[in-house]
Amino acid sequence: MRVYFDNAATTAMDDRVIEAMLPFMKQHYGNPSSVHSHGREVRSAIEKARKKVAELLNASPAEIFFTSGGTEADNTALVCGMETHGITHAITSPIEHHAVLHTLEECAKKGKVKLSLLEVNEKGEVNLDQLKALLEKHPNSLVSLMHANNEIGTINDLEAIGQLAREHGAFFHCDTVQTMGHYVHDLKNLPVDSVVAGAHKFHGPKGAGFLFVRKEKKIHPFIYGGAQERNMRGGTENVIGIVGVAKALELAYEDMAAHRDHITAIKKAFKSQLEEAIPGLGFNGASADLDNSLYTVLNVSLPPSEENRGMLLFNLDLNGISASGGSACSSGATVGSHVLRALNHNPERESVRFSFSRFNTLEEVKYAVDKIKELYAVSV
Amino acid sequence: MRVYFDNAATTAMDDRVIEAMLPFMKQHYGNPSSVHSHGREVRSAIEKARKKVAELLNASPAEIFFTSGGTEADNTALVCGMETHGITHAITSPIEHHAVLHTLEECAKKGKVKLSLLEVNEKGEVNLDQLKALLEKHPNSLVSLMHANNEIGTINDLEAIGQLAREHGAFFHCDTVQTMGHYVHDLKNLPVDSVVAGAHKFHGPKGAGFLFVRKEKKIHPFIYGGAQERNMRGGTENVIGIVGVAKALELAYEDMAAHRDHITAIKKAFKSQLEEAIPGLGFNGASADLDNSLYTVLNVSLPPSEENRGMLLFNLDLNGISASGGSACSSGATVGSHVLRALNHNPERESVRFSFSRFNTLEEVKYAVDKIKELYAVSV
Ligand SMILES: Cc1ncc(COP(=O)(O)O)c(C=O)c1O
Ligand SMILES: Cc1ncc(COP(=O)(O)O)c(C=O)c1O
Repeated sequence: MRVYFDNAATTAMDDRVIEAMLPFMKQHYGNPSSVHSHGREVRSAIEKARKKVAELLNASPAEIFFTSGGTEADNTALVCGMETHGITHAITSPIEHHAVLHTLEECAKKGKVKLSLLEVNEKGEVNLDQLKALLEKHPNSLVSLMHANNEIGTINDLEAIGQLAREHGAFFHCDTVQTMGHYVHDLKNLPVDSVVAGAHKFHGPKGAGFLFVRKEKKIHPFIYGGAQERNMRGGTENVIGIVGVAKALELAYEDMAAHRDHITAIKKAFKSQLEEAIPGLGFNGASADLDNSLYTVLNVSLPPSEENRGMLLFNLDLNGISASGGSACSSGATVGSHVLRALNHNPERESVRFSFSRFNTLEEVKYAVDKIKELYAVSV
Repeated sequence: MRVYFDNAATTAMDDRVIEAMLPFMKQHYGNPSSVHSHGREVRSAIEKARKKVAELLNASPAEIFFTSGGTEADNTALVCGMETHGITHAITSPIEHHAVLHTLEECAKKGKVKLSLLEVNEKGEVNLDQLKALLEKHPNSLVSLMHANNEIGTINDLEAIGQLAREHGAFFHCDTVQTMGHYVHDLKNLPVDSVVAGAHKFHGPKGAGFLFVRKEKKIHPFIYGGAQERNMRGGTENVIGIVGVAKALELAYEDMAAHRDHITAIKKAFKSQLEEAIPGLGFNGASADLDNSLYTVLNVSLPPSEENRGMLLFNLDLNGISASGGSACSSGATVGSHVLRALNHNPERESVRFSFSRFNTLEEVKYAVDKIKELYAVSV
């Protein structure tokens, strides 16, 4: 059996997404910027995709810009958000994804911005009092706080953060890569200025995503060139990617409640079976809280074990189980997780992020738990 | 009949490229950064693609970085080339693609760089004496001159430009989007520091391309995030795009001579038949020179005609013929071509770029010429 429990890293594409993309590989090859019929039929597919995404998120099509994924969208929102609005102070947390952290650190290194990091508690919750104090001290800041943490499942209170940001005239960028397609985002009413998506986190293609920027907070382009994306992103469009993003989001919204129930049941079963199998099991961040964490992620902390020290992911892989140590994007075995480090996690314990999708089954849960039990049988 | 003569805007995908991409939509969905088997099989496909591209171009795999296309690659080379190497003076020409021009103009607007534009003659050839004088005055410049012009087919003398750049310690970026896959690039021996590609110009997917940066001229990333692309570009990789780029380039190199002969024959036939059909026909730039211009492009200048004024592309389209006015990326009917403007083209005449691929036939040539003749019959 081969079990894929690394869905926060990426998901398998839905067959219906592939079906939607294929005609744009085969028949419809025109350049969407061309005015002739070959071009117009493709342009119309892109604008239909934009309209669909906007509709699902209760946004305006003019607020949706397709990108090469979540990372480019984060870079765009942060770099151009600050440049356009003359922002020289940014507030973020040490457990943001590297797409946010490294981008802001680079801006700080270039002297374009001063960076303030919020404290986080052992659950991965940011200190809102500190946020308030910083905003009072630095009006016209940028606040970049993610919706749900990709490693430990902690969910930020976007209403509270957004309210604070608004009260202090800050630009609030929210990295929604892990929640897009899994939660409803009502962007007209959510107090955020920009959010992002990577389609591959919700059964769409890799290398395709989008950026939402609220009309009132319009920013200048990150990539310059032709007049694509309403002059907001140069470059011939990744047409199949764009069609794939929209289709994947449409499917995600169609059955969101059912998917959520299914995945939550998987997570719950995995959690309880694993707790029973492994004495001394713990959990990282907020992920064990079934009601108040990202329902796709469970980050487990296993008791020290000589046999598995530094080898657990490898041992799982040998047994056909794909899971992850930190975020996939920095999962070099030696690097470790900056998120767990920020939480003062005990490095003697092995941490593994298991993350689930609607394609997972209870049989897979049982198989994985049995295998982990075997791996720990010797040492416990 | 529907005739696609807009291959400089984009090309139809080769079926074999689609075949190569499909397994990475269907079976192999892992995140290439994941260390487990789901990830490793995808990582290996990416590194195989990189090796293949490097091999074909006589470069090292460490010099090839996959991007979301030619425009992102141009932005990266220019912005990061100048930042990394402390360059504050850039030399380019007014007939570069907007991916270069708008990017440099933005850098100039931000005060990061002073911009010098080279003179071009009516063929679109840059003034090399002026280049030399500018380089003498401003050592440590960036020179950005394209290989072949996408609108008028003029080919720059890369050897001469590169030699001048090297002698004066300049960084030479060459926009090779129109020649990649159509000409042999021997990057070990060509005196360029960076070149770029967009796969969709040689029967690969849109939204995928690459950047070559010579080892000795290493630059920092443009998009920050995870450790992808050897720390040179954050973001989960567009796996299907990367596989598609490499496959398309491989196929292009396999039959390059035969494709070149075929396309040159198409261009030659179209040129001579059209000259016969339309008295007073002219050509823009160097494109009519069959031996010394981009063999995929013919930019024709038609005599003034009341019936077709501002309507020619539209009339062609009505007759099933797709061609273009300028570059696709700015082909809004009202904008006009910045390239033709720089060449002091007579605005009374209609200019149309016809561009060809290996999928075009002599039947299509005849059909198109007949239609154009009809359109002009009334007025000539
Ligand atoms: C000369 C030139 N440079 C850059 C580009 C931009 O490349 P892409 O379409 O892959 O973004 C194009 C094509 O659109 C081009 O013709
Ligand atoms: C929270 C978060 N932000 C950003 C990203 C980057 O998005 P992408 O993989 O589409 O570049 C990811 C995933 O890798 C993520 O989990």
